Amino acid sequence: MTVEYDNEEFFQQYAQMERSKSGLAGAGEWHQLRPLFPPVEGLRVLDLGCGYGWHCRFAAEQGATQVLGIDLSQKMLDEARRRNPGPQITYRQCGIMEYEYPEDSWDLVVSNLALHYVEDLEQVFRLVNRTLSAEGCFLLNIEHPTFTAGVGQQWVCSPEGKPLYWPVDGYFLPGERRTEFLGCEVVKYHHTLTQILNGLLQADFTLAAVEEAQPPEELMSLPGMADELRRPMMLLVKAQKGKRG
Amino acid sequence: MTVEYDNEEFFQQYAQMERSKSGLAGAGEWHQLRPLFPPVEGLRVLDLGCGYGWHCRFAAEQGATQVLGIDLSQKMLDEARRRNPGPQITYRQCGIMEYEYPEDSWDLVVSNLALHYVEDLEQVFRLVNRTLSAEGCFLLNIEHPTFTAGVGQQWVCSPEGKPLYWPVDGYFLPGERRTEFLGCEVVKYHHTLTQILNGLLQADFTLAAVEEAQPPEELMSLPGMADELRRPMMLLVKAQKGKRG
Repeated sequence: MTVEYDNEEFFQQYAQMERSKSGLAGAGEWHQLRPLFPPVEGLRVLDLGCGYGWHCRFAAEQGATQVLGIDLSQKMLDEARRRNPGPQITYRQCGIMEYEYPEDSWDLVVSNLALHYVEDLEQVFRLVNRTLSAEGCFLLNIEHPTFTAGVGQQWVCSPEGKPLYWPVDGYFLPGERRTEFLGCEVVKYHHTLTQILNGLLQADFTLAAVEEAQPPEELMSLPGMADELRRPMMLLVKAQKGKRG
Repeated sequence: MTVEYDNEEFFQQYAQMERSKSGLAGAGEWHQLRPLFPPVEGLRVLDLGCGYGWHCRFAAEQGATQVLGIDLSQKMLDEARRRNPGPQITYRQCGIMEYEYPEDSWDLVVSNLALHYVEDLEQVFRLVNRTLSAEGCFLLNIEHPTFTAGVGQQWVCSPEGKPLYWPVDGYFLPGERRTEFLGCEVVKYHHTLTQILNGLLQADFTLAAVEEAQPPEELMSLPGMADELRRPMMLLVKAQKGKRG
């Protein structure tokens, strides 16, 4: 996990994004992510890379008894405490790799658009599996392998600046990708689909849903949103702890 | 399913491919597909789009009691009967959508590089589920969504003809793609990853493995093989009949 989010300039830019201003309603993936949540009533919920805390608040509002949101960025957590507080919610500054993942302690682990900042997904999957209770659920949204394998993670554009196509290269060379996002250099990690899905299977999860985020009709008027239909950007996965059968 | 394979010129070109000349050993995906096979001894095996019949022969050699290979191309089946015959093996001219899929009749259904010729995958998944026995397995290798969403399914090349990157566009517009393969126009269908994997889950399968084919070191000297590391071409999925848990 990187701390670009603590860079003042980056943080200001991030604050201007629709998902920052409007919360879940402004997030193109929410109409698909929300139905993947199990009934949250009575659950203990851990959010890996909680950002502004929108999902923590959602979980609390849905009846979670205990919610912990961890994030590496202090600025993000300040914002989360201000915007999305709640008596059941704790926010804590902690990296995804640094968290202790106590055994059998959470019923639902959520991670929205944070795991592409982590290099060793396999290890995270093992740790999440350990910290989940017996029937626990892991709900994750990670940048799509087709997106993270994009050259510079940018469209190839015409001389007039019109996106022509999404250029993929180096797909089977997972690892660090330095890209520009909101005017800053951001370090992310490309993982193949095999690493994500077979990684979950090998960490003793059952796959309950695999969906690529497709922005809904009502957000199509937002700048750049129509291009989101041209290549997949996010991969949503619902994984249940345990092998079935 | 198309019948380009019955076009004489296409068929001659196909015969020159490494996978046609050397069979499974010449197929870049075989080192990954083979370990995904369940123990075949005693199983009834159906091969959808059997081509030259290499997988039918493999199944028979591994102890399958009954093997049916279907293919739309008569030329392919002639070749299969000549190259890969066996007392347990039947070859039959039949399209994947046309086969009757009798209930509870096969223990293993295999489909290697044929399902991207089928438009309605959802229907195939339902039919395969029906024809499988209770603990049955569906092993499929389909062209990867990143590949089928490729513009013209061709690299963007430098003026010197060097592949620069794989151009993706229209990802969330599944359906027909007219492409050139071995000098002929071939009609294929692009399916998103969601359609393939969530389609299997919704057709009452459990996902046991999801792997992208990565050519092995020893085939790296074949023409074009190194570029196969730059974008994923094939998606291998092992799906077990039934929801677990």
